[in-house]
Amino acid sequence: MASPNRIPEIRKDTVNNRWVIFSPARSRRPSDFKSKSNPVNPTSQPECPFCIGQEHDCAPEIFRVPAAGPDWRIRVVQNLYPALSRDLESSGELAGRPGGGSVALSGFGFHDVVIESPVHPVHLPDLDPVEIGDVFMAYKKRIEQLQCYDSIQYVQVFKNHGASAGASMSHSHSQMIALPVVPPTVSTRLDSMKEYFGQTGKCSLCEIRFDTLLIDESIHFISISPFAATFPFEIWIIPRYHSSHFHELDGVKAIDLGRLLKLTLRKMNVQLNSPPFNFMIQGSPLQVSPTQLPYTHWFLQIVPQLSVVGGFEMGTGCYINPVFPEDAAKLLREVSISS
Amino acid sequence: MASPNRIPEIRKDTVNNRWVIFSPARSRRPSDFKSKSNPVNPTSQPECPFCIGQEHDCAPEIFRVPAAGPDWRIRVVQNLYPALSRDLESSGELAGRPGGGSVALSGFGFHDVVIESPVHPVHLPDLDPVEIGDVFMAYKKRIEQLQCYDSIQYVQVFKNHGASAGASMSHSHSQMIALPVVPPTVSTRLDSMKEYFGQTGKCSLCEIRFDTLLIDESIHFISISPFAATFPFEIWIIPRYHSSHFHELDGVKAIDLGRLLKLTLRKMNVQLNSPPFNFMIQGSPLQVSPTQLPYTHWFLQIVPQLSVVGGFEMGTGCYINPVFPEDAAKLLREVSISS
Repeated sequence: MASPNRIPEIRKDTVNNRWVIFSPARSRRPSDFKSKSNPVNPTSQPECPFCIGQEHDCAPEIFRVPAAGPDWRIRVVQNLYPALSRDLESSGELAGRPGGGSVALSGFGFHDVVIESPVHPVHLPDLDPVEIGDVFMAYKKRIEQLQCYDSIQYVQVFKNHGASAGASMSHSHSQMIALPVVPPTVSTRLDSMKEYFGQTGKCSLCEIRFDTLLIDESIHFISISPFAATFPFEIWIIPRYHSSHFHELDGVKAIDLGRLLKLTLRKMNVQLNSPPFNFMIQGSPLQVSPTQLPYTHWFLQIVPQLSVVGGFEMGTGCYINPVFPEDAAKLLREVSISS
Repeated sequence: MASPNRIPEIRKDTVNNRWVIFSPARSRRPSDFKSKSNPVNPTSQPECPFCIGQEHDCAPEIFRVPAAGPDWRIRVVQNLYPALSRDLESSGELAGRPGGGSVALSGFGFHDVVIESPVHPVHLPDLDPVEIGDVFMAYKKRIEQLQCYDSIQYVQVFKNHGASAGASMSHSHSQMIALPVVPPTVSTRLDSMKEYFGQTGKCSLCEIRFDTLLIDESIHFISISPFAATFPFEIWIIPRYHSSHFHELDGVKAIDLGRLLKLTLRKMNVQLNSPPFNFMIQGSPLQVSPTQLPYTHWFLQIVPQLSVVGGFEMGTGCYINPVFPEDAAKLLREVSISS
């Protein structure tokens, strides 16, 4: 085992400005962490509106890849149950509210779905790196479309895999929500990264020290366990090149990222028993100012669902992580994957 | 039904400074919200270390109520698997860290359990108001003890009820974690309440407008659905009197709060099918300055577990709530409870 005699420690995630408690007493051995969830159903599902041939049961399409013809590989469609409405006016503050400091805005925004494969049983790590790269290029294209709306401030790209990670459909897909506000996590991260830049003149993610925290690396990316990981076996894939926005990605880097993400998800499936998981692209507001460019740097955060969030985390915003990131990194670094 | 023709809205929680998306398209009817979790096992459990007579299987006791004798009604004990260690030195920053802006502290702190009843099948809403008041007075006593440690900055009192809400023991209990840092949620709330005070000269919780958001009221407390509730059917119980710290509660107010909490939990059980839930006492750092006293005001936050947190919430810190607080309040206001 990687971690003899560890004692509790409180670490600060200086990128996200939050405290995490590392608590070995609450842990099984890190190598014993396995998901107990049922794997996502691997067979086809006759009524699935995301399957090829079922397009008529789906919400309206935004675009497909390739652009024309019935043999699509990726479709970007509207969410049938959108969190925000593209049909509302982006009218700013709503009138007639109860006052007392309360603020309400129109629920204008976009909520789209990226169907990652035409067939039901194929999941992201089953695709080859070029195909995963195409999914990333679809995100990029859609972000560039959404950027044309003046009132859209931020686009959150995310994937929920498995019912207990929030997925209501088992067909492989990711989602994009375009928001008329900058969300709190993003503003906090911006402030933290600005502070580090003010002190050192450097970008905190370009300078990140990973030594024992490295899992894998490719030409343009590294995958690491972050020093103050909020969740057990949380992984960050960080571009080695400085870039504020995911959508600056080009086709070559997209394939390189596809290769590293495929490896990472396959390792997670082996080591952690195919857990439900979420991934999130952590980026910058669409309109960053030139002064913010030097310290904003996007990354992909992957969180396998292995623990339950309780009242302590809800109350404080501090998380208790039973697995030290060094131990998680060592285990994931050493998983052997047959290619 | 309470909510005809609602359209999406983005509301700001000005106490906690976060945005919440209210999205009726993603909802069943508010009155259809029911927990699908299995209720907590109501029968006794022979091996439970929290049961009377099993004290020898439990971690060391801190105190009991009444103070002496075998017939206790409440016990405050150490957590057998503490998140933080009371045996470490509170030495501040740890040396020998990887650098690059990373910060780590000793994991010094306290993690205690409050066993709320000597017998297994009795849960908090089964107790009478005086007995629930005694549980609150036990929290108060323990907070006052923890306050004597200079390096303890904040005590989070919380309850996890049901396995999917984070409870590992089914015997009715709550927990207290004493931290050597002020957690992020608390600093953010302090900043928000300070800002409101700066603008208006008033405490935002003394001034809270509830009109259609009121659920119930007692002599010293109100229970409401907050205007920008993060979670469906979230409830806040707020003291009508201005008070920075929970532990300023006296015996009379503790019983009054016990009565209102009992009513609230019973209503939640009827309306939402005995859901797993968390509650958290949302208070102030132990060492608030005299200038902070006018705008800090504690409250009890109750969150039934009815929804799954996914990648959007993790990524942005914004939550999507399918139930408008006005609708939740109306349903909970009108639940009839046989006394």
